[in-house]
Amino acid sequence: MRMYDLIMKKRNGGALDREEIEYMVTEYTAGNIPDYQMSAMMMAVYFTGMNEEETAALTMAMAHSGDMIDLSAIPGVKVDKHSTGGVGDKTSIALVPMVAACGVKIAKMSGRGLGHTGGTIDKLESFPGFTTEISSGHFIRQVKDIGAAIMGQTADIAPADKKLYALRDVTATVDNMSLIASSIMSKKLASGADAIVLDVKTGSGAFMKKEQDAYALAQEMVTLGTVAGKQTIAIVSNMDQPLGNAVGNALEVEEAIETLRGKGPDDFTKLCLTLGTYMLIAGKMAADEKEAGQKLKQVIESGSALNKLAEFVRAQGGNPQAVYDTSLLPKASIVEEVVSGQSGYIGRIDCDEIGVCSLLLGGGRETKESSIDLSVGLVLRKKVGDPVSEGDTLAVLYANDRDRLRAAKERFIKAYHFSDTAPADVPLIRRVVRK
Amino acid sequence: MRMYDLIMKKRNGGALDREEIEYMVTEYTAGNIPDYQMSAMMMAVYFTGMNEEETAALTMAMAHSGDMIDLSAIPGVKVDKHSTGGVGDKTSIALVPMVAACGVKIAKMSGRGLGHTGGTIDKLESFPGFTTEISSGHFIRQVKDIGAAIMGQTADIAPADKKLYALRDVTATVDNMSLIASSIMSKKLASGADAIVLDVKTGSGAFMKKEQDAYALAQEMVTLGTVAGKQTIAIVSNMDQPLGNAVGNALEVEEAIETLRGKGPDDFTKLCLTLGTYMLIAGKMAADEKEAGQKLKQVIESGSALNKLAEFVRAQGGNPQAVYDTSLLPKASIVEEVVSGQSGYIGRIDCDEIGVCSLLLGGGRETKESSIDLSVGLVLRKKVGDPVSEGDTLAVLYANDRDRLRAAKERFIKAYHFSDTAPADVPLIRRVVRK
Repeated sequence: MRMYDLIMKKRNGGALDREEIEYMVTEYTAGNIPDYQMSAMMMAVYFTGMNEEETAALTMAMAHSGDMIDLSAIPGVKVDKHSTGGVGDKTSIALVPMVAACGVKIAKMSGRGLGHTGGTIDKLESFPGFTTEISSGHFIRQVKDIGAAIMGQTADIAPADKKLYALRDVTATVDNMSLIASSIMSKKLASGADAIVLDVKTGSGAFMKKEQDAYALAQEMVTLGTVAGKQTIAIVSNMDQPLGNAVGNALEVEEAIETLRGKGPDDFTKLCLTLGTYMLIAGKMAADEKEAGQKLKQVIESGSALNKLAEFVRAQGGNPQAVYDTSLLPKASIVEEVVSGQSGYIGRIDCDEIGVCSLLLGGGRETKESSIDLSVGLVLRKKVGDPVSEGDTLAVLYANDRDRLRAAKERFIKAYHFSDTAPADVPLIRRVVRK
Repeated sequence: MRMYDLIMKKRNGGALDREEIEYMVTEYTAGNIPDYQMSAMMMAVYFTGMNEEETAALTMAMAHSGDMIDLSAIPGVKVDKHSTGGVGDKTSIALVPMVAACGVKIAKMSGRGLGHTGGTIDKLESFPGFTTEISSGHFIRQVKDIGAAIMGQTADIAPADKKLYALRDVTATVDNMSLIASSIMSKKLASGADAIVLDVKTGSGAFMKKEQDAYALAQEMVTLGTVAGKQTIAIVSNMDQPLGNAVGNALEVEEAIETLRGKGPDDFTKLCLTLGTYMLIAGKMAADEKEAGQKLKQVIESGSALNKLAEFVRAQGGNPQAVYDTSLLPKASIVEEVVSGQSGYIGRIDCDEIGVCSLLLGGGRETKESSIDLSVGLVLRKKVGDPVSEGDTLAVLYANDRDRLRAAKERFIKAYHFSDTAPADVPLIRRVVRK
C-alpha cells in the first residue's frame, strides 16, 4: 500500500476502506508517512469529505493508536461527558459531583484551556493543592471509592489524533465535520467509559457558529459512539452568550459551587440538570427523565452534591474547605464595575469577545506555554434580553493589573449590543440527538 | 504574512495576490515554509484553481527563484522549443539541426527521461562521447559559432519549481493546469530565449489524454509566455500512437538521422516541418509559412541539416562520424520480429504501453537512479490504419536480454488492437495556439 495512491483516491472522490485508513493512521503515527503527504490528504478530505464508514474507521484507528484505558475494575456503568467548549463553560465542575452523588461512576479525562475558552483542569486548580496528575491506579481507585475522578489527558491516549490535530491546526484543515468528530470521539473511546454524553455548543462563542453544523457534528459523534458499542447521546446547546455569569477560572468555580447550593444562574443550572438527566439514565441510576430530574434536585437540596465536590477535591489533593468557604479561592486585587452608558435591552453579546476579555485580564493562555492567573475574569450582571437603564452595572471585572483591566474594559464595552425592544428568546437546549 | 492565512484564503476559493505568491515561493525555496503547508496549499489549488494573474505571478516567482540565463551575448533572436513529452518523441534531434541550418539560434536546455517517455539528453548520448554537461561559457560560444547547443538543466534554473514539483509528485497534486503550465514556463523563461515554440502532446501516450486539456494547457502557456514578453506559439499534436516508428534511444537517433536525409516517417517529418516553420518565423529567418517550409526542405535536400547535426555532435564531444555511419551507434545483440497472428486493420495502439515495452527492454528509467541501455527498443512496422495480413511483421524488437525480450513482447502484443475496417484518419497537428 502506498500513501500516494490513497491521496489520489481520496482526491478523486473515492472512499478509503478500513484497511487503508488503518495503514494510514498507523504508519503516520509511526513516522513512516511524512507530514507533507498527510496534509495533502487532509486537504483532499476537506474538499471531498469522508463517508460514515470512513469516519468510523478513522476514529477507531486513532483510538487504538495508543493506550485503551481499561475501567472494567470499576463496577457499574462508567459514564463520560464531553463539551466542545465555550465561554464560561464550567459544567463539569458542578455536574460531576451532582451525578456522582446520584451513584453514577464518572472516570473522566479533561484538558487545559487554549485561546478564549477555558479548560476544566485549569479551573479545578483554583482549589489550592488540587492536581489532575494522578496515576491510573489512583484514578481507578478513586472512582471506585467516591464515584468520580478527573485526570489530565496523557500523551498515550490517541497519539495519532494528537499528531494529526497538530498538523491540521497549521494547514487550515481543521474545520471538516468528519475530522472534528473523529478527533473528539477517538479520545473518548480510548478513555474507556461505557456511555458518553456530549454537549455540542453552537453560536457566536462556539467553534460551530451555525446550529446546523453543530447538529451535524452531534449526529456524527452519536453515530460514531453507537457504532463503537457505546451508549451515546448528544445535546446541542446555545453559546450565543457566555454560559452562566462568571468567566474566569476561580470565578467559574465559585459559580459552580453556588449552583450546587441551588443558587446558580438559571441557564447554567438548566444545562447541568439536562446533561445530568441523560448521564443518570445512561448510568442506570434513573429509569426516565422524570426520575433523573428528581434525584438531581434532591442531591442539591440535601447538600450531598456539594459534599461530593468537597470529597472529590480532597481525593485529588485540594483543600475541601474552599468548597464551603470560597474566600479560600484565588482572589483578584482589583474589582471594577462596567457601567452602561445607555438604556435599552441587551440585544446581542459577542460571546467570543467576552472570552477574549478574560484572556486579556490574564485568565487564559495565548500559547501552550503561557501561564495563567486563576483569580481574574468577569461576572456578567446583564445578559441577552435583560432591560438596562443608563448607569446600571453590566459586569464586574476582576484584575491584578491596571493596563490589562483597561484593555479588557474597552473590549468588553464593544461586545455588548443594545436594542430598543427585547430580542426573541432563544432556548438554551436546541436539540437532543440519540440513536 | 503567514502561510496559514494563504492556505485558508486559497482553500476558501480566494485569489492570492502577487505579493502573497512571491512570499510563498521565496520562503518555500528558502526552507522557511515547511513542505506540509505547501502540500496542503497545492491540494487546495487542485480543488479551487488559480486565475490567470495568479498563474502568471507563480510562473514569474519560480522563474526568478534562481539563475536567469543571459543570452544577450548571442546576436539575433534566440528560439527555444519544448515538448510535453511522448513516446518516440525524438523531435529535437532532427529539428535543432534543421532550424540551425536555416540560421536560427537555438540555445536549449533539455532533461533526461523518466518512466515510459525518453529524454533528449539520453538519446543524444547514443553518439559516443557526446555530453550535455558543458559550461555556460561553452554553451553561449557554441550557439554563436554553429547556431545550436543543448545543455543539461542545472539546479540553478528555477529551483523553486524543482522543489515544488518534487513535492507535488508525491502528494498527488501534479495534474492541475495552472501548476503544470507554470512549472514548464518558469524554466523556459529562466532559460533566456526570446521566443518559445511549444509542442503539447495529446492522446493515449501523452500526459494530457484529452485534447481539450492539451488545448487548455497550450493556451495557458502561450498566455504566460506572452505576458512575460516572449513570442510564444504552441501546437497541440497527436500522441495516440508513437511518433514515427522508432522507440528507444539509439533507434530514435537513427530515425532522426534518416529524417534529416529526407527519408523519415511521414508523421515525424511533418511534425518537424511544422515546428520548424514556427521557429523560423519566430527567429526572423522566414517571412511566412511558405518561405519557412521551402527553406527547411532545402536544408534537408542539400544535406546541410545533416551536416549541422554532425557539427553539433562534434561541438559537444561526440563522434560526428556516427551521423554518416549509424553502425557506430550502440547496437542490441538480439533482434526479433513480432509477427501478427491475425488479419485486419490496426484500429488502435495503447501508446503508453509501447513506451513501457521500451522500458521493459531496458531503454528507460524506472527510478531517477536507474541506468539505461541505449541500444534497445523497438521499431514499429505497422501503425494505426495500416492493413495487416496474418504473418506480417508488426514490429522489430531490439534487446540484450532474453527475459526482458519475452516480457516486452508479451506486453507489445496486448497493446495492438485490430479492427475489421480502417479507422478514421486522425490528423497529427490538432491545433495551433498563438496570441
